[in-house]
Amino acid sequence: MTQHDAVEVISAKRDGHPLTDSQIDWVIDAYTRGDVAHEQMSALAMAILLNGMDRSEISRWTAAMIASGERMDFSALSRPTADKHSTGGVGDKITLPLAPLVAACGVAVPQLSGRGLGHTGGTLDKLESIPGWRATLSNDEIMAQLERVGAVICAAGDGLAPADKKLYALRDVTGTVEAIPLIASSIMSKKIAEGTGSLVLDVKVGTGAFMKELEKARELASTMVALGQDAGVHTVALVTDMSTPLGLTAGNAVEVAESVEVLAGGGPADVVELTLALAREMLAGAGVTDVDPADKLADGSAMDVWREMIRAQDGDPDAPLPVARESHVVTAPTSGTLTRLDAMAVGMAAWRLGAGRTKQGEAVQAGAGVVWHARPGDRVTAGMPLLTLHTDTPERFERALASLEGGWEIGDPGERAGDPLLIDRIA
Amino acid sequence: MTQHDAVEVISAKRDGHPLTDSQIDWVIDAYTRGDVAHEQMSALAMAILLNGMDRSEISRWTAAMIASGERMDFSALSRPTADKHSTGGVGDKITLPLAPLVAACGVAVPQLSGRGLGHTGGTLDKLESIPGWRATLSNDEIMAQLERVGAVICAAGDGLAPADKKLYALRDVTGTVEAIPLIASSIMSKKIAEGTGSLVLDVKVGTGAFMKELEKARELASTMVALGQDAGVHTVALVTDMSTPLGLTAGNAVEVAESVEVLAGGGPADVVELTLALAREMLAGAGVTDVDPADKLADGSAMDVWREMIRAQDGDPDAPLPVARESHVVTAPTSGTLTRLDAMAVGMAAWRLGAGRTKQGEAVQAGAGVVWHARPGDRVTAGMPLLTLHTDTPERFERALASLEGGWEIGDPGERAGDPLLIDRIA
Repeated sequence: MTQHDAVEVISAKRDGHPLTDSQIDWVIDAYTRGDVAHEQMSALAMAILLNGMDRSEISRWTAAMIASGERMDFSALSRPTADKHSTGGVGDKITLPLAPLVAACGVAVPQLSGRGLGHTGGTLDKLESIPGWRATLSNDEIMAQLERVGAVICAAGDGLAPADKKLYALRDVTGTVEAIPLIASSIMSKKIAEGTGSLVLDVKVGTGAFMKELEKARELASTMVALGQDAGVHTVALVTDMSTPLGLTAGNAVEVAESVEVLAGGGPADVVELTLALAREMLAGAGVTDVDPADKLADGSAMDVWREMIRAQDGDPDAPLPVARESHVVTAPTSGTLTRLDAMAVGMAAWRLGAGRTKQGEAVQAGAGVVWHARPGDRVTAGMPLLTLHTDTPERFERALASLEGGWEIGDPGERAGDPLLIDRIA
Repeated sequence: MTQHDAVEVISAKRDGHPLTDSQIDWVIDAYTRGDVAHEQMSALAMAILLNGMDRSEISRWTAAMIASGERMDFSALSRPTADKHSTGGVGDKITLPLAPLVAACGVAVPQLSGRGLGHTGGTLDKLESIPGWRATLSNDEIMAQLERVGAVICAAGDGLAPADKKLYALRDVTGTVEAIPLIASSIMSKKIAEGTGSLVLDVKVGTGAFMKELEKARELASTMVALGQDAGVHTVALVTDMSTPLGLTAGNAVEVAESVEVLAGGGPADVVELTLALAREMLAGAGVTDVDPADKLADGSAMDVWREMIRAQDGDPDAPLPVARESHVVTAPTSGTLTRLDAMAVGMAAWRLGAGRTKQGEAVQAGAGVVWHARPGDRVTAGMPLLTLHTDTPERFERALASLEGGWEIGDPGERAGDPLLIDRIA
């Protein structure tokens, strides 16, 4: 590898020049090894945030982060693989019904996930509310479960893209999270290292999403689709609304329960719609076009895979889910149409009730969260329960209620409410 | 002090907002104490470099750096004080004749200086070529010498603006040196903490200077003059040419010898011109308008102060200066007019001969350096010595000669050569 100098690389980006392949390879490798110091990488990250990177720079940056660690290989499996990544939203439990559903359609789903931080929940945190369920699997266990069950949701191993792990933690404390090249390469380096054959991205936009503006969400989506293409992974992105939370629940056990309803053929219409839309993209990406995933929800086969998948990781799919010790009901003050339910307000409330964590490593409450009893567009009558707050620690109600203040509106009957869920598709 | 958060402060500047007084006070104090990490400060420095700071931000930033340490106070002296700072150039020995000259005119000069790094020399390195001379003085010694002799050139104490010391070292390794707000506040925080009553800045522009473009040099000069005003220090800046090196020497002992020539009433015309121009500004800033410094060079009184000043710091003004063991002469290949002698080429050659250091703490060679025998505009004849290179370590000649290649030109007799020395005055 050609030797470079950290100040040379930082200065090039600072002065608005594209970084060369050789500079990118060197700086990622040297940072992973500790030869480029944190303070040098953070200056470079800020220069990237403010001066940008072009497509070929981002692609090389992503490849260099993948090369910093191991890369999984599912080519020995008997079926094709497809993976999904969501940029994170409130009430976003879609991975839970989606992975077994796609597996039931004949495509293996290796879903390596993370834990939540802040107002959006983490898939592993949700599943850990199932008694006995285990998030950590060895690579051999992942392979065996994919072959036998077809779906795995588990923790991503430490060996994948270690440069990204180090850089992500640095960006978090240096105000450099909000750089599209760095967000895109962070997500895609992990997903490509995870070895999937095809990938569907759910890029959220709206108050409850990381991206608040549609143009930024579209830019992130196109950047990631291009990175997937450059790495030979069939990649499609859906841009979906996150100004309203998904479904009727935000928390851990409450979201598992809602996911099981969807697998049983019921569940909120928006969760079903998004699950099926993503399933169809994953199946198409894996080359499976002759199966309608809606049939697999209706005939119970997706539910069968769910139960097997939970059992394979030592979980008991029949055990009752944890329930929070305390609850508090917010009732509708007037009658009318619920015209707005703000995703960020709900996400903050669920987080403050104990469903999420403030810092890495903190425990979360399995039973905590928010359940709402109407969605935007629904009729509500004065006095009916609008939201139920759940927590084990009732001193949390006050701050949770404060974050819900102004977070919903009741208007005239029949008034238009909410935006379409599926906003754009970028392929 | 109001508590802030590093990410909040970084994000504000990243997003193009001015920092509040409270944010600036907090971040400088927290960085000095180690509560803001290096990687956070470097991200902030890059955001400042790319998004800038307005006058009131830079002024507050400077005040916060001054407040991070001790501040000297010369108000008990029987005479006014004036100080000078140069942004650094090749052959810039002006401080050496200037400090005793101004003192001879009745104004005390507390000149707290640094060591050289890279191609521009350091004032302390030059004076240390005088046998016995001592750079480090206590605050009491400085006060006593100012009162008795009128001039002190010594090392700046560690207690002055410690935030600047920490930040300067960080900027050096993170590609964030080139930010005018940070350059200006770094220089001015030290100079204001040094307690001078008035200040003259020599802002260099040209190939051998830190600032290569006139507009940038003017911007730096105005920024620093405004900072001086905001801090109640009478401040004037001269913008002077550094595309040609000053005088006829670049090195350590060779520059001391040239300075003594100036004090003896001789010396190269440009060194005399700049010394007198800066002396007049310093005297005017200190309110002394009835003395012509040229008289004090002519009547030997500036030389008397020089000798006293050197002796007060244990140096022997009569001892022979060190001479390098080896020398190499470059002769003129043709006859004509020397039309160009490049400051950067000469500075690099002197540095490579051993006059400067590559990293902090390295020793320098007292006798090393470059002496040139013609200045731009002078007639030269084929075969006459053009430059003499001096070093104790002859293996250095090759790289020094390489850096001089293309660094000078001989043109038609009478051809115009060089730019005026004094370019602008900003008050």
